[in-house]
Amino acid sequence: MFEQDTIAAIATPAGEGAISVIRVSGEDTFRICDKIFKSPSGKKISEQKGYTIHYGEIIDNGEVIDEVLVSVFRKPHSYTGEDSVEISCHGSVYIQQKILQVLIKAGARTAQPGEFTKRAFLNGKMDLSQAEAVADLIASKSEAERRVALNQLKGGVSNELTSLRKQLVDFVSLIELELDFSEEDVEFADRNELLKLILTIKQRIDKLLTSFSFGNAIKNGVPVAIVGRPNAGKSTLLNTLLKEDKAIVSEIEGTTRDSIEDIISINGILFRFIDTAGLRQTSDKIENLGIEKAIEHVKKAEIILYLIDASQDAKPVLFDKILPFIENKKLIILLNKVDKSIISKENLNFGDAEIFEISAKYGKNIDKLEKTLLEAVNFSTFAQNDIIITRTRHYEALKRCSEAADNVVEGLRTNLPSDLLTIDIRQMLHFLGEITGEITTDEILGNIFNNFCIGK
Amino acid sequence: MFEQDTIAAIATPAGEGAISVIRVSGEDTFRICDKIFKSPSGKKISEQKGYTIHYGEIIDNGEVIDEVLVSVFRKPHSYTGEDSVEISCHGSVYIQQKILQVLIKAGARTAQPGEFTKRAFLNGKMDLSQAEAVADLIASKSEAERRVALNQLKGGVSNELTSLRKQLVDFVSLIELELDFSEEDVEFADRNELLKLILTIKQRIDKLLTSFSFGNAIKNGVPVAIVGRPNAGKSTLLNTLLKEDKAIVSEIEGTTRDSIEDIISINGILFRFIDTAGLRQTSDKIENLGIEKAIEHVKKAEIILYLIDASQDAKPVLFDKILPFIENKKLIILLNKVDKSIISKENLNFGDAEIFEISAKYGKNIDKLEKTLLEAVNFSTFAQNDIIITRTRHYEALKRCSEAADNVVEGLRTNLPSDLLTIDIRQMLHFLGEITGEITTDEILGNIFNNFCIGK
Repeated sequence: MFEQDTIAAIATPAGEGAISVIRVSGEDTFRICDKIFKSPSGKKISEQKGYTIHYGEIIDNGEVIDEVLVSVFRKPHSYTGEDSVEISCHGSVYIQQKILQVLIKAGARTAQPGEFTKRAFLNGKMDLSQAEAVADLIASKSEAERRVALNQLKGGVSNELTSLRKQLVDFVSLIELELDFSEEDVEFADRNELLKLILTIKQRIDKLLTSFSFGNAIKNGVPVAIVGRPNAGKSTLLNTLLKEDKAIVSEIEGTTRDSIEDIISINGILFRFIDTAGLRQTSDKIENLGIEKAIEHVKKAEIILYLIDASQDAKPVLFDKILPFIENKKLIILLNKVDKSIISKENLNFGDAEIFEISAKYGKNIDKLEKTLLEAVNFSTFAQNDIIITRTRHYEALKRCSEAADNVVEGLRTNLPSDLLTIDIRQMLHFLGEITGEITTDEILGNIFNNFCIGK
Repeated sequence: MFEQDTIAAIATPAGEGAISVIRVSGEDTFRICDKIFKSPSGKKISEQKGYTIHYGEIIDNGEVIDEVLVSVFRKPHSYTGEDSVEISCHGSVYIQQKILQVLIKAGARTAQPGEFTKRAFLNGKMDLSQAEAVADLIASKSEAERRVALNQLKGGVSNELTSLRKQLVDFVSLIELELDFSEEDVEFADRNELLKLILTIKQRIDKLLTSFSFGNAIKNGVPVAIVGRPNAGKSTLLNTLLKEDKAIVSEIEGTTRDSIEDIISINGILFRFIDTAGLRQTSDKIENLGIEKAIEHVKKAEIILYLIDASQDAKPVLFDKILPFIENKKLIILLNKVDKSIISKENLNFGDAEIFEISAKYGKNIDKLEKTLLEAVNFSTFAQNDIIITRTRHYEALKRCSEAADNVVEGLRTNLPSDLLTIDIRQMLHFLGEITGEITTDEILGNIFNNFCIGK
């Protein structure tokens, strides 16, 4: 089914460290190791049991290259499902490369990105959504990302979809059996039961589809635009949010000096705060460019924090410019500088929008704001172990599956002939199978594994 | 003798990778692991044999943090000599940190730099020069560095010094025994034998001292200044050296644009080539600053490549400015552009200096030049497995030991009273012992291990 040659790669992060690990997998793994590994007692790697560790030296042309530990994994009880070893060496960049060279000289070849995991998939050690979860887990930068990826790795998505798909396969088989007996007008597949199953599948899929915007936010951070007139306290608010016990994940300088992004993790959820240019009526060209940019950020944001300086006039500035873009978004009005307030919440009219009195400077009600932010991303609608979709590939396959399900429902309603009905059901099976990799193409595999790091 | 608490650290290079390894060592290692590790079969890490690997999950407050492999090492058969494990997890930066936190919550503490190796030293798993070799091995960036560090790790320095030191200890004991019987005028220690031993030790030490400049060059690269008039082909030569099959290790931009450093590995030896400003008589202030800088580089270099443009006048330019600084250095005269030569080697007068006709542009005789460079660093006087000193600490201790040896020899010649003689011998023992760590102080240990990376 696929190449059986033996691959090798440095599996630990690039650079210098105390130790580094080089991974080898494939049919010739043990033969290659016997050539280059020498233990003090003369034992051979090829004769060792799986899940054991062996101290010795890597030898090249009679010269000792490094003292190492070799971990042995025998097929099928390894990550890839093949014979494999992990060589733990001194973490010098030079030594890592040198040992890799020695392995290649002895018959291995450099692994492509994700090739170990690809082999795990091809050998049936995991399905495709689990393989993707491995990449997501490695890339995870927050608690929520880690949790979602681990759930997926442990088969969260797969188990649910595989079970639904299996039930659907049974139905389609029955319907196709009917076709063989078409002249006898039999009905092996109970249409009511089928409808029930399709509706169940659609319900599950739609829930997964809903989870995507949350999953996406988990992965990239929920975009939050902080807008308001100059000096309303936007930067102070950002600093206050940063200074709390949260981790500052990164600070991205915008193309213009006046938009700063900071990714902050609140309770394990990443929020991408965008501090925008102050809004005011002005004829200054440069300043107006900044204001346009601020409006662009509002368009892209999921949550808008609109700051009002309570120590000044409460009248919102340029709010009408933003209004057209906040439909379906969470708008939170923040009445800042309440310690010096000359106005009250009751004087404001922002329709349904939530209004908080805060002091960015003194941290007043910042905890309440954080709670509202977390609620705004629907965190509460997803339980800790709920299955969350984070990949566009999954979203698209599920979306198409959902559409096919609609067609099946419609077909059942209109008594569509069985042969036509099965086309739509087969569509559903196809898209469900794409996610778990039961149905796959080289292109799909390429897209997935080319984005892996080397060594995984 | 030292703290027995359990330490933990990320041992693989910083950053994201396929896998990362977290090291734990100390009395409570297995107890801590039992708290946070759950295997599918329910087995406990504390009940596992050494040199075995176990698949399972890291658990925090009932939540699965990651799927991991745990390698078990039981004392004294571990790197540190203590009970220890290595946890191999998904290489996300977040997950690495999270597992470290879980370990700390369960009773470990973060390891200090080099603390694992320090424990290995304190537990007698290696001596001090071997511990230093571990750091050197991790930092090695070339074949020669790797080889020298590995030799030292395998006990090269220690074995030689420990054996000599032991013989010396026997002598000093005999002499001190004589002192107990001082009224009887006995002589247990044969003074001729002692002299022979001291001279042997001094000879060995002096050879090690000689190796230091070579060892230093191995570590930092042999500094080679490329000088000559403008357009003599200096930069072309550097580029030609770079373009060959050698690894470019780095390019260091000087403070002035006109001095570029490139570290190139030739046959595993690092050379630090410094391309300097062209030499010529000029009144231009800026240019003269560059020329002064070039002369500074000559002062610091071990090898000087003086380029002459054979297609022009062969007369050396400003050579007298350089001459005072090349004593004890290797001077190589390169008659460049020989394809368009209007002069011949025989017209030149540079005393003993070697003269090569080369073409930097067409690569003529570059191989000969490389061979000469390798010979110039005394590579040939050191065999592949010779012991090379690379650390200033060792150099200084050996230097003092050599001086003390001179005093002993002088004392023997002048029939110095035994009690005074032993003072100098004890000095020798002290300095030899400092290298291997038989005699050590917290300050020495601090200096050595604080420069380690964390996790080793």
